[in-house]
Amino acid sequence: MDSVARLSLNQITTERASLGDTVDACARHGVPAIALWRHKVAETGVDRAARMVRDAGLRVSSLCRGGMFPAPTSAERAARIDDNRRAVDEAAALSAEVLVLVCGPAPDRDIAAARRMVADGIAALVPYAAERRVRLGIEPLHPAFAAERSCITTLREARRLAERFDAATVGVVADVYHIWWDPELYDELAGATGRLVGFHVSDWLVPVRDILMNRGMMGDGVIELRRIREAVERAGYVDPIEVEIFNQAVWDTPLETLMPLVKERYLACV
Amino acid sequence: MDSVARLSLNQITTERASLGDTVDACARHGVPAIALWRHKVAETGVDRAARMVRDAGLRVSSLCRGGMFPAPTSAERAARIDDNRRAVDEAAALSAEVLVLVCGPAPDRDIAAARRMVADGIAALVPYAAERRVRLGIEPLHPAFAAERSCITTLREARRLAERFDAATVGVVADVYHIWWDPELYDELAGATGRLVGFHVSDWLVPVRDILMNRGMMGDGVIELRRIREAVERAGYVDPIEVEIFNQAVWDTPLETLMPLVKERYLACV
Repeated sequence: MDSVARLSLNQITTERASLGDTVDACARHGVPAIALWRHKVAETGVDRAARMVRDAGLRVSSLCRGGMFPAPTSAERAARIDDNRRAVDEAAALSAEVLVLVCGPAPDRDIAAARRMVADGIAALVPYAAERRVRLGIEPLHPAFAAERSCITTLREARRLAERFDAATVGVVADVYHIWWDPELYDELAGATGRLVGFHVSDWLVPVRDILMNRGMMGDGVIELRRIREAVERAGYVDPIEVEIFNQAVWDTPLETLMPLVKERYLACV
Repeated sequence: MDSVARLSLNQITTERASLGDTVDACARHGVPAIALWRHKVAETGVDRAARMVRDAGLRVSSLCRGGMFPAPTSAERAARIDDNRRAVDEAAALSAEVLVLVCGPAPDRDIAAARRMVADGIAALVPYAAERRVRLGIEPLHPAFAAERSCITTLREARRLAERFDAATVGVVADVYHIWWDPELYDELAGATGRLVGFHVSDWLVPVRDILMNRGMMGDGVIELRRIREAVERAGYVDPIEVEIFNQAVWDTPLETLMPLVKERYLACV
């Protein structure tokens, strides 16, 4: 990239910092957007968090996360949808452009049934989100997370699911960590034209140790970041690019060291 | 399953045991087939290994493994193909029905180029394998291994690659651990009719810790083993079903305890 105009710091990258410290670091280092996480927003309170990001002049690229639709009983599934409605309310209060959906794993061995629960859950949520003008972004997760975080694992599956609904309300979030391995990646990005509502970058480190915490700083792994970014742009996505890194070493890095590194690698590698 | 007639013990399940001890355990416990690994066969010597399995009356369902085609230089790629030719010779000497191909990771960030190297490597190997009547089985590996073991990650990709060659020489190996999460699993198994040359079972444990060693005994995880086995049979595969488990606790279990458990779980869960 030739500027940081589209850079957004996903708050999980500074998991150890408070929202206030992260907002402050973005403002001081000229990062124009932030992606918020509900557990961090809850620490601060939604109204106060909304004021902090507004006062700092930050765009809120997304709120993470809704989803987690499958559950063994209809009462539990209804409770999940209620929680998603609260997430939509929070996204609206924070002026977040997208509520990211991590769709959830199957409660048992029947992954096909879980996928139907995801479709039903999104269908139940869509009218509520549309009224509040919050877009839902279905994020396919890496198949390594299929049993624990999301039964929706490929761009194609996420896109087909999104296409059941109005593009103004339901789109797809492309995160390089989750999709880089896909043999049909570039065809699928092209096929998602008009549906992409988020783009997340990090890197895939080698060797893999802990699959959740294996994300690296851009440039430290094996992902063809620039090629993927260019394909995402050809698919019409020109909104913020979130740096989202689950990595203990990154979390242990002081913000004053981390922020310049994020910008440098974003400019050099994305 | 209603009998162990199709059960094959993949030797990695008894990684700590010598070939002799594993062959002996199969014979004593009525397991009619075995899948061999080259590093274990090398400890024994190919001719002696072949004699041992023949004397025990065991069918050799496969030899693991050839593959690892991508490399940064043409000289290195040629060396990999030479090694694959040796693997074909070993498979022929052992009367192994299939040489399993774990295709290898990219040597750099260009996974598309690595996939071309895989196709070129298989093309170079096919005439040699056909002459020796050894079938090559392309095994798609779970996308979690894309950076370290195989750039071929889905059944569809493996099937399309196999279809470039004669079905008598190149097929696809379906391993539940690698493919269970695939949203197009059942369509792809049906699409692989006539191309399936191996079927491997284990289970996907939750939570995932070490992705390599996360396989469990059938029934201990989240995979719909029976549904997948039935789909594999509808696709025309009626040959041995290999139990292939990378798991430290399984490796630490004495053969006299492990073999009855393998049979019990195979009958109950597969």
